[in-house]
Amino acid sequence: MSLKVLTESILPAIEYELQRQVARLDEPRTRPFYEMLTYHLGWTGEGASPEASGKRIRPLLLLLTTAACKAGWKPALPAAAAVELIHNFSLVHDDIQDKSDLRRGRPTVWKKYREAHAINVGDSLFILAHLSLSELKDKFTAEVALKAEAVIDRACLDLTRGQYLDMSYESQSGLTIQDYWPMAAGKTAALLSACTQVGAILGNADESTQEAYRDFGHYLGLAFQVHDDYLGIWGDNALMGKSTDSDLVTGKKSLPVLYGLGKNGLFARRRDEGPVSAEEVRTLAEQLAREGAKAFTQETADQMTDLALQSLRQANPQAEAGEELFELANQLLNRQS
Amino acid sequence: MSLKVLTESILPAIEYELQRQVARLDEPRTRPFYEMLTYHLGWTGEGASPEASGKRIRPLLLLLTTAACKAGWKPALPAAAAVELIHNFSLVHDDIQDKSDLRRGRPTVWKKYREAHAINVGDSLFILAHLSLSELKDKFTAEVALKAEAVIDRACLDLTRGQYLDMSYESQSGLTIQDYWPMAAGKTAALLSACTQVGAILGNADESTQEAYRDFGHYLGLAFQVHDDYLGIWGDNALMGKSTDSDLVTGKKSLPVLYGLGKNGLFARRRDEGPVSAEEVRTLAEQLAREGAKAFTQETADQMTDLALQSLRQANPQAEAGEELFELANQLLNRQS
Repeated sequence: MSLKVLTESILPAIEYELQRQVARLDEPRTRPFYEMLTYHLGWTGEGASPEASGKRIRPLLLLLTTAACKAGWKPALPAAAAVELIHNFSLVHDDIQDKSDLRRGRPTVWKKYREAHAINVGDSLFILAHLSLSELKDKFTAEVALKAEAVIDRACLDLTRGQYLDMSYESQSGLTIQDYWPMAAGKTAALLSACTQVGAILGNADESTQEAYRDFGHYLGLAFQVHDDYLGIWGDNALMGKSTDSDLVTGKKSLPVLYGLGKNGLFARRRDEGPVSAEEVRTLAEQLAREGAKAFTQETADQMTDLALQSLRQANPQAEAGEELFELANQLLNRQS
Repeated sequence: MSLKVLTESILPAIEYELQRQVARLDEPRTRPFYEMLTYHLGWTGEGASPEASGKRIRPLLLLLTTAACKAGWKPALPAAAAVELIHNFSLVHDDIQDKSDLRRGRPTVWKKYREAHAINVGDSLFILAHLSLSELKDKFTAEVALKAEAVIDRACLDLTRGQYLDMSYESQSGLTIQDYWPMAAGKTAALLSACTQVGAILGNADESTQEAYRDFGHYLGLAFQVHDDYLGIWGDNALMGKSTDSDLVTGKKSLPVLYGLGKNGLFARRRDEGPVSAEEVRTLAEQLAREGAKAFTQETADQMTDLALQSLRQANPQAEAGEELFELANQLLNRQS
């Protein structure tokens, strides 16, 4: 693993900017509310740690893109904070919707503070993202600030659409692989593609370079999600560690599951019979692999990865930032958990 | 009641603009999601009607203010739609948080579609508000568009702060009247004051006029909330119609309740003993009035009303729009339910 000099200097700046933006909420009277946000962001409370904060992939992607366009990344920090706040807004609400008890090894916001407060915490994170974006006008023209914001808001609307599909698929039958892409595009690719597009806009890239970066983020998001779906069934955690986390148990309509259902074989028949127990996970994962879903998912992830890297090469990213963008993409797409 | 010519022409334009903005979500694949929003907005589904849509007070206030600054109100329509969408975002989430079954006589979104979808519906309304605001740049300078948006986002942050206080007060004791104002300012006054301030900004008013309009909205919001608190105990609905709606039963920490608790008299002692039943509502409301809360609440509402009208006069609103702004204020502050 190489020393990622730029990344190492960007990460603390992201954290500082996030803290500055969230501090808008820090008033004596509403201190406990503010602390719900700092808890979720991994800064305070039991288990606070860099691991509890997450990897800050989205703001990093945005700022590396700006730098790879040969512009300074510091002026883009409010946009970087905004995309991370939006990501966290969606996580807080998602955890309520999925009734998830844990997030990055700690109790989720709704579990710790009840649903009513968690809804409000998510809302405030989303609003803080917009207040953060409103600071772009101090470093960029008002037109550029508005363009960046519109890109992000359109991605957010796609996010809610993807979330709707994800939730409605749970109870829907007869779904096919074609139903997968709009969900994955909304839930994962939309925000990542907004990160790289906004990074390019703030890096003053020309229109075709902006599009190449947008496509890079889009395919990176799809590749990431497909890889995630692969790990959700054949990853170590799903097979051995906590097999209750397996997508086969949760019933998630992931890409390999949709593939298997479409085959109408033994896997599909077993699924039709009702919930899958943790004990069955290994056998059923093997069956699904025999029906071709494992190879198909791996090939699809590879395809999306190729498209992502192809778009990135087309964007022609410059200097260290460019190299570190390639490294970040590889790191995301080769993770084992 | 006079003919409000301007208001009558503005209201259908608001509805049309709202429909246009929400239509961003209307795609075949996510049609049922879109229909959750149109249901909530009173356009479709069982019980759809103008009454189910609400009174559109916030966008009306914004557009009348723009017109009262002698500017055309039509270019401000995207901002008007935005404040109404934000109001409805907060209602949808509020109904989940309060576990309210009915809104404007119909099942609430979470009751009809479950909580997970209702969270997503609220989120999408908030995002649509921002996409609506992003259209302001087509009619105003980018700087003006950004200023309007920042005013609205700051109000939204106050809204979440007020919501936090409202929820945390439920389980807090030892609260006084001083605790009331930050809650009411956040929950009710913040958005109304953003409406009038943004109306003035888009009406190209000078700085001091913008401030006068902002103050008008602020005090109008406080007067509205105090009046609402009055009706919540001594209004017809609370006393006779559906006495389970009485703030004495729900336990809401409204202004008269905080006043009564501060008196440490019979009312406070009864409250200390636990939940109040619908049968006790009339007697307890009379007791609270005897302890001075009714007169105090009425006086406070009158004071806030005076401050609102004083600010409005200072803003010097012009022509029909000005007259209709006064009428709208009076209508809001004299309603009986």
